[in-house]
Amino acid sequence: MELNCPLPFEDDERITMAHGGGGRRMEQLIREVILPHFPTGGLKNDHDGVVINGLTGELAFTTDSYVVTPQFFPGGNIGDLAVNGTINDLAMCGARPAYLSCAFILEEGFAMESFRQILVTMGKAAAAAGVNLVTGDTKVVDSGKGDGIFINTAGIGQLLPGARIGPERVAAGDAVIINGTVADHGMTIMAEREHLNFESGRMESDTRPLHREVAAIIDEFGAQIHCLRDMTRGGLASVLNEIAQSANVQVTLEDSKVPVNDPVQGACELLGLDPLYVANEGKFAIFAPEELGTEIVKLLKAVSPENTPAVVGKVAAGEPPRVECINEFGSRRILDLLSGDQLPRIC
Amino acid sequence: MELNCPLPFEDDERITMAHGGGGRRMEQLIREVILPHFPTGGLKNDHDGVVINGLTGELAFTTDSYVVTPQFFPGGNIGDLAVNGTINDLAMCGARPAYLSCAFILEEGFAMESFRQILVTMGKAAAAAGVNLVTGDTKVVDSGKGDGIFINTAGIGQLLPGARIGPERVAAGDAVIINGTVADHGMTIMAEREHLNFESGRMESDTRPLHREVAAIIDEFGAQIHCLRDMTRGGLASVLNEIAQSANVQVTLEDSKVPVNDPVQGACELLGLDPLYVANEGKFAIFAPEELGTEIVKLLKAVSPENTPAVVGKVAAGEPPRVECINEFGSRRILDLLSGDQLPRIC
Repeated sequence: MELNCPLPFEDDERITMAHGGGGRRMEQLIREVILPHFPTGGLKNDHDGVVINGLTGELAFTTDSYVVTPQFFPGGNIGDLAVNGTINDLAMCGARPAYLSCAFILEEGFAMESFRQILVTMGKAAAAAGVNLVTGDTKVVDSGKGDGIFINTAGIGQLLPGARIGPERVAAGDAVIINGTVADHGMTIMAEREHLNFESGRMESDTRPLHREVAAIIDEFGAQIHCLRDMTRGGLASVLNEIAQSANVQVTLEDSKVPVNDPVQGACELLGLDPLYVANEGKFAIFAPEELGTEIVKLLKAVSPENTPAVVGKVAAGEPPRVECINEFGSRRILDLLSGDQLPRIC
Repeated sequence: MELNCPLPFEDDERITMAHGGGGRRMEQLIREVILPHFPTGGLKNDHDGVVINGLTGELAFTTDSYVVTPQFFPGGNIGDLAVNGTINDLAMCGARPAYLSCAFILEEGFAMESFRQILVTMGKAAAAAGVNLVTGDTKVVDSGKGDGIFINTAGIGQLLPGARIGPERVAAGDAVIINGTVADHGMTIMAEREHLNFESGRMESDTRPLHREVAAIIDEFGAQIHCLRDMTRGGLASVLNEIAQSANVQVTLEDSKVPVNDPVQGACELLGLDPLYVANEGKFAIFAPEELGTEIVKLLKAVSPENTPAVVGKVAAGEPPRVECINEFGSRRILDLLSGDQLPRIC
């Protein structure tokens, strides 16, 4: 019989303060755990910045921190949310996403296995979208001074030829088009957080990149696309309010035309939440002349057949700027900006 | 006698979850509290990204999150640290810093007045360095799930003409030059955190931007400057170790030539810390052919007369890669990478 040594103490099972200290443990974390998931271009290990090439003229630049809780949910986790979310912010500028940075704030004690899962997802999301995660940063904070993991991604994109996106370009006569069902992400997070099960069926976050849809419509319609806006925190209603304010216009939304998945609709009714205010992570609104509405819907459907794009509203002149919602019976209500949010920390 | 109404409850004294909710309170926080401090270019309020212009060819891209505790310390706060730190990461790529993004993760209950002070400092630091804070993000996490404020800044810079910076370019015959005293930042943070007072005098963080020194030496010496590295987490010793590994060389450091301020030296001795491993936030190491050493020191002194630049070491061929330190009596010791860090959360 052979005597085996006991297994060495596996102190790498959890994040420790040393993983953020700038020494050997951090170097090891970056080299062994983080970098393998970013093969293309690669997070640079040996430098605090990276030199990028091939971009010219007008560039888009954006940043977002992700603090969603829980970090894992049906349809995704904080990792693909962080990659897709910043891709989408670039796309909403009318840009082709090119490079992302990625900065982690890890809480001491966070499970290494969870971190690995998040990294795998980020690598896949970046590869699927054809963007390069090129530079990063890792910090560790004491137990009780964070919440497992926060991720910041900043992004640089190249403006698409012909793109002229801006809320001030939205004008009377524009249609409001959205690329699919609303409230999936927010309701999924809420159900997950509160451990709610709805008989109406399974919900799933809609986190996904939107740059292909954007490229298709800009390629086809160029500067006729006046504005693009992803419907994250605050949902469709907040986007319409922001645009109404920025462009000094009045927007009318037809409630019955806004697609909502059945389980999401059921959950909203049960909880008394308005799906128009609930966050999405793979849905956006397009503002373009009314006569293009049908064609844009057709194009969006062609790029993403699983979606249900629709013309849901229109823009008119008039003071003061406001958003009105008409239901199927013709009754009207004002959709105002919320004071806070229905659901905190959904992204 | 006039009857006065009681003062209205000032609920804006502290950060609330609603400030991160995407609704009216968040819009107000961004418009009234954040934007006034970023006058040039301005953090864009009405869009999640910004279009930037005028950059071509090779760009530098970097990101860093700042989690320093305490947030306020002699010589600065987390705000100028976040601006200067990312400026310095760009400068270390051989780039002129141009645009910064800025993302806040605020803890519910964080004092609005502290946030304002940090914003004032960030605005001043950006203006002083001639960079534009152009896009941002604000998230709020529940009380007990953060630590007051974390800041991420990502940056884009334009590579300076003639710059060819890379650790792999460091070669036998290079000198190691640093631009001034070491360990000021780390020891200041430690003293502040532990409420230590040293009789040896007042210490102060050295947080400041380094791009002017970098521009001056690249302008003068171009590609003869082989590598630049700011000496943050892990200090000078860690930088030298990283370079030795990347370039596969041996580095010899002359201990007595490394300038250390008296109070810092005193504090280090009292606490048994090695200043070579303590973090800096306004100091960097330059690797360039030995014959340029004196000229580089002279130029650094001309740009920043308050500093005490010095040639402190040299690079030689040899295996394995390592860093050796010679003291004034000629005795030698190996400077290894630390496993973790002497001081956590110093930036």
